[in-house]
Amino acid sequence: MHIMVTNDDGIHAPGILALASALRVLGEVTVVAPDRERSAVGHALTLNSPLRVFELRDGFYAVDGTPTDCVNMGIHSLLPFRPDLVVSGINHGANLGDDVTYSGTVAAAIEATLMGIPAIAISLATFDRIGHFPEAAQVAVRVARQVIANGLPEDTFLNVNVPNCPDIELMPPLITRQGKRSFVGNVIGKTDPRGRKYYWIGSGEADFNDYEGTDFHAINRKHVSITPLHLDLTNYESMKVISGWDF
Amino acid sequence: MHIMVTNDDGIHAPGILALASALRVLGEVTVVAPDRERSAVGHALTLNSPLRVFELRDGFYAVDGTPTDCVNMGIHSLLPFRPDLVVSGINHGANLGDDVTYSGTVAAAIEATLMGIPAIAISLATFDRIGHFPEAAQVAVRVARQVIANGLPEDTFLNVNVPNCPDIELMPPLITRQGKRSFVGNVIGKTDPRGRKYYWIGSGEADFNDYEGTDFHAINRKHVSITPLHLDLTNYESMKVISGWDF
Repeated sequence: MHIMVTNDDGIHAPGILALASALRVLGEVTVVAPDRERSAVGHALTLNSPLRVFELRDGFYAVDGTPTDCVNMGIHSLLPFRPDLVVSGINHGANLGDDVTYSGTVAAAIEATLMGIPAIAISLATFDRIGHFPEAAQVAVRVARQVIANGLPEDTFLNVNVPNCPDIELMPPLITRQGKRSFVGNVIGKTDPRGRKYYWIGSGEADFNDYEGTDFHAINRKHVSITPLHLDLTNYESMKVISGWDF
Repeated sequence: MHIMVTNDDGIHAPGILALASALRVLGEVTVVAPDRERSAVGHALTLNSPLRVFELRDGFYAVDGTPTDCVNMGIHSLLPFRPDLVVSGINHGANLGDDVTYSGTVAAAIEATLMGIPAIAISLATFDRIGHFPEAAQVAVRVARQVIANGLPEDTFLNVNVPNCPDIELMPPLITRQGKRSFVGNVIGKTDPRGRKYYWIGSGEADFNDYEGTDFHAINRKHVSITPLHLDLTNYESMKVISGWDF
């Protein structure tokens, strides 16, 4: 059993270290991860510049690229075998609802899925500096065991979110659907010392709909949330409606 | 009627100029686009560095960021009004099948959709230097007219691909589902003048399944392809199966 581990917080993040070390009970683990934080890069692929790889220690490769680059580097160049499983995380911060489209952690799982390799994205629902990563890593092992035993449906990966609490408070996993965030974004304009304007994308005010059955709802009640995501974005229900339009 | 136009090929690309000029028949057009090519950036958002904006001429803003950044800058800062429609493109090259997850053009439409603004992504299916952009721009006008007249289903945008041919050869639009690419990726290792290795993500060999009803199938037969895409990635069918697993 060969498992490749990656993330978007960078190879020195506590989440990836806890994950790689816990997954060793299941097989050989190789880490191929960005050399620094690469959050919110989405499914970005580096096409216009070459990539460098640094082997930090045995089985730990740092790449100066995105999580999607790391999956490509690992599978097409660094790993001696095609891995049986790719696990991306443990992300520092939840990846719930529509946020999955921005997430580098989730994008790595998408890339592995496109290559036909079973994949899991796992995130810890906290921005606190100190997180319960060892507990979340044990959740990753349990989910990975099931994926190895059962296989995944075609074109589908698992998006796992773990509440930030000690083992004893953790509620059992729920199979959820992707929730919906209502996001009020903003942009903040400032002036530099030379009098020129510059802008920050603000963190805005984010709220979510606490509907039963969603990833948000599960996490808020201290359940582990497991959402099967696929890569077919077609809104089948609306196809008939649009077919009636006069183009 | 206010329309915001963006892309991922950069503000000087022929596709965006043809698009902006054609859409003027429908209302006021403001262009907010990356200052240079930003292909394959996915749904990347610039959080760790500030953005600069350059007003090139009236209603033409160049941003040193991603397409997703441009949508944020346009809507939260540069445009005097919330636009009635966001149109992203005309991309130089098709955005079909799973490739939509990498595309900056499509990501801009996703961002507008998250903000509750109707959006269209439009791409011209060619990598030739000379493309039929004016013809594709007329397709954009026709699709935009219908979106304005009918509205879009919730959480849904249109991914439009146009074959690269003169008007007279263009077949009528088909409402399609997202196709499936079978992609054999690769990575190419090289050595620099100082003897250190570096790597390129290769273009690999890509093939697609020419199934009826897909975007690929339509484009190959010179039809305009219109695919309604939504942001819910949940694989609902697989939820029951996974619920039976022993976590």
